[in-house]
Amino acid sequence: MKKIILAPDSFKGTMSSLEICRIMQEEIRKVYPACQIYSIPVADGGEGTVDSFLHAVSGKKIEITVKGPHFEDIRSFYGLIDGGKTAVIEMAAAAGLPLAGDNSKPMSTTTYGVGKLVKDAVEKGANKIITGIGGSCTNDGGCGMAAALGVDFFDYSGEKFIPTGGTLNKIKNVDVSGAQKFLENVRLITMCDVNNPLYGKNGAAYVFGPQKGADPDEVQILDSNLQYYGNLIEQIPGKKDVSNYPGAGAAGGLGAGMYALLNAELLPGINVILDVVHFDELLENCDLVFTGEGRIDGQSLHGKVISGIAHRAKLKKVPVCVVVGDSRDDEIAPAYEQGVSAVFSINRRSLPFSEAKLLTDKNLRYTMKNILGLISLKN
Amino acid sequence: MKKIILAPDSFKGTMSSLEICRIMQEEIRKVYPACQIYSIPVADGGEGTVDSFLHAVSGKKIEITVKGPHFEDIRSFYGLIDGGKTAVIEMAAAAGLPLAGDNSKPMSTTTYGVGKLVKDAVEKGANKIITGIGGSCTNDGGCGMAAALGVDFFDYSGEKFIPTGGTLNKIKNVDVSGAQKFLENVRLITMCDVNNPLYGKNGAAYVFGPQKGADPDEVQILDSNLQYYGNLIEQIPGKKDVSNYPGAGAAGGLGAGMYALLNAELLPGINVILDVVHFDELLENCDLVFTGEGRIDGQSLHGKVISGIAHRAKLKKVPVCVVVGDSRDDEIAPAYEQGVSAVFSINRRSLPFSEAKLLTDKNLRYTMKNILGLISLKN
Repeated sequence: MKKIILAPDSFKGTMSSLEICRIMQEEIRKVYPACQIYSIPVADGGEGTVDSFLHAVSGKKIEITVKGPHFEDIRSFYGLIDGGKTAVIEMAAAAGLPLAGDNSKPMSTTTYGVGKLVKDAVEKGANKIITGIGGSCTNDGGCGMAAALGVDFFDYSGEKFIPTGGTLNKIKNVDVSGAQKFLENVRLITMCDVNNPLYGKNGAAYVFGPQKGADPDEVQILDSNLQYYGNLIEQIPGKKDVSNYPGAGAAGGLGAGMYALLNAELLPGINVILDVVHFDELLENCDLVFTGEGRIDGQSLHGKVISGIAHRAKLKKVPVCVVVGDSRDDEIAPAYEQGVSAVFSINRRSLPFSEAKLLTDKNLRYTMKNILGLISLKN
Repeated sequence: MKKIILAPDSFKGTMSSLEICRIMQEEIRKVYPACQIYSIPVADGGEGTVDSFLHAVSGKKIEITVKGPHFEDIRSFYGLIDGGKTAVIEMAAAAGLPLAGDNSKPMSTTTYGVGKLVKDAVEKGANKIITGIGGSCTNDGGCGMAAALGVDFFDYSGEKFIPTGGTLNKIKNVDVSGAQKFLENVRLITMCDVNNPLYGKNGAAYVFGPQKGADPDEVQILDSNLQYYGNLIEQIPGKKDVSNYPGAGAAGGLGAGMYALLNAELLPGINVILDVVHFDELLENCDLVFTGEGRIDGQSLHGKVISGIAHRAKLKKVPVCVVVGDSRDDEIAPAYEQGVSAVFSINRRSLPFSEAKLLTDKNLRYTMKNILGLISLKN
């Protein structure tokens, strides 16, 4: 083993992808001290996304003051990579649920600060903006973000305003020309791993509203406002089906707003990450890729981390070893055709999750040790 | 992979070693169709021991009528291997707990039938007798077995009798000359994996008496009788410390009786098995050995299956892969120095044992599939 890539997802609730990379690397070093090891802690678009990118590729962290979810001033940040040409933004840094605090009100919270992060990056010269949208506290359809980038919203009295979840139904007209001009040479990429439509029972308000603090009555208002908003922005040329566009309902409808108002591309997070780190080039002469996630099941094989990695590795004939918390083996037979050579659970004893989760770091270490023991038999 | 040896212990309570061999073999065949696979289902000396030996080496099963634990006639059996020169006997076939039924009385049950199995094998020409002594219902110090082979026991009135657990204290004299003559050219080997002394708190009666049906009063009597018996047979030249000899308390004191009265060797079961199957010769040109057990822990590394196998494989530089139910990783660090390359638990999900045990066969299959996926990367 001369070259190994580590690209694990986090084990939700037990270990971050960065921590997993660290343990994997330490165990590999014990067996192959001279091995080239590339760590790509896979970001999920939520809190920690910027740090993950900055760990995987060189770059710098920019700190600025923007508006928080309640339009208050907060210190926030984003990452610049590719010599400043690409910015990585995590929505949670300006509109994250923890920032809303106990006062979480998706009727009135805004994504305005997220737009300001984008604006600052563009002004600093970035022409590619990657936005991770996990962990938001908003339901404003991305209007705040759009407003910060030059989209103007007018109410029925002709007044300009910044719509929030509770006031989306007050929008009469939208003028995207300012933002179009500002973002003329900028590519906006949104890491989006949910397929929810904008409204309805599977939409942003019903599915994600309650965890953002909306009561049942508010959920109904938010949903009906999103429907109004969806119909409105579907008038924008080329955005006819935005309400049902997969991911339109992500991040309180920010998905729809970014797509319709800002012409952003909504892409599976793992593909965005793998492109940014030049994964295909890294695979050249690579002996093995380790990936993993908290639980591999049938879902894992549809555009998620493991299938995304396996697909590319297979094209380059690089084997993939998957290390997971739980393996639903009955569901993952197709993984082996997708390019996965082996799947190991880190469980080393029969224990319920409540006990097993206390052992994850140790168990991962032991599992890696034994996987390497097997691999090194003939290498 | 051109040659693989499978030598797993059973997973107690979930899978027999034969079943484990079968699943392992099927999975190996899928990846290496032309591989030579040698299955050695490791017998534990209890029920199934004869079948295990007959699976590992060619031989035949002999069925005869002998006395059962209550001196009743029963159909029993043993195995002849090595062209009839070696017999394999499982004590459970003539003095096993299931044979005693609800009427289990270690005060009065006998090992007489076990002796008759040995006698028959010797009369058929066997000069090496391997006896597995697990799962007994007796506490007779092996007197019944010895009597069947020509040892005479006399009570205080000079009458010959066959002592049982409740009457060991009635023995006045022992005459071993008949058995000595009968077994003159016979090597008796007892598979013994417990270290209990003959009597006392760690002795046969206290530790194993209750599960054989002895009530607390009977346990005391059985223990005191074993003490009397131990003192008596310690008079036999060369048997001074028989009461504390490791394994003397095995199988209701049969260990002591076989050692003192019949000059049997008490050896760790795994060594006996590995010798019989000519394991050291099988290791020549072998690529990999799979072994395993229900749970690997610190105990596993002391003369048990895994350490026994790893020790020999290491001498021949053949790697060993261990597949277990549970792995107590914190305790098994020395295993890797003993020659173990890797240890994998078959657990693939965080589940309590009550649920995990229902999945053992599936989980073993999946684990093997993935181990082989890893091994076959470079082979």
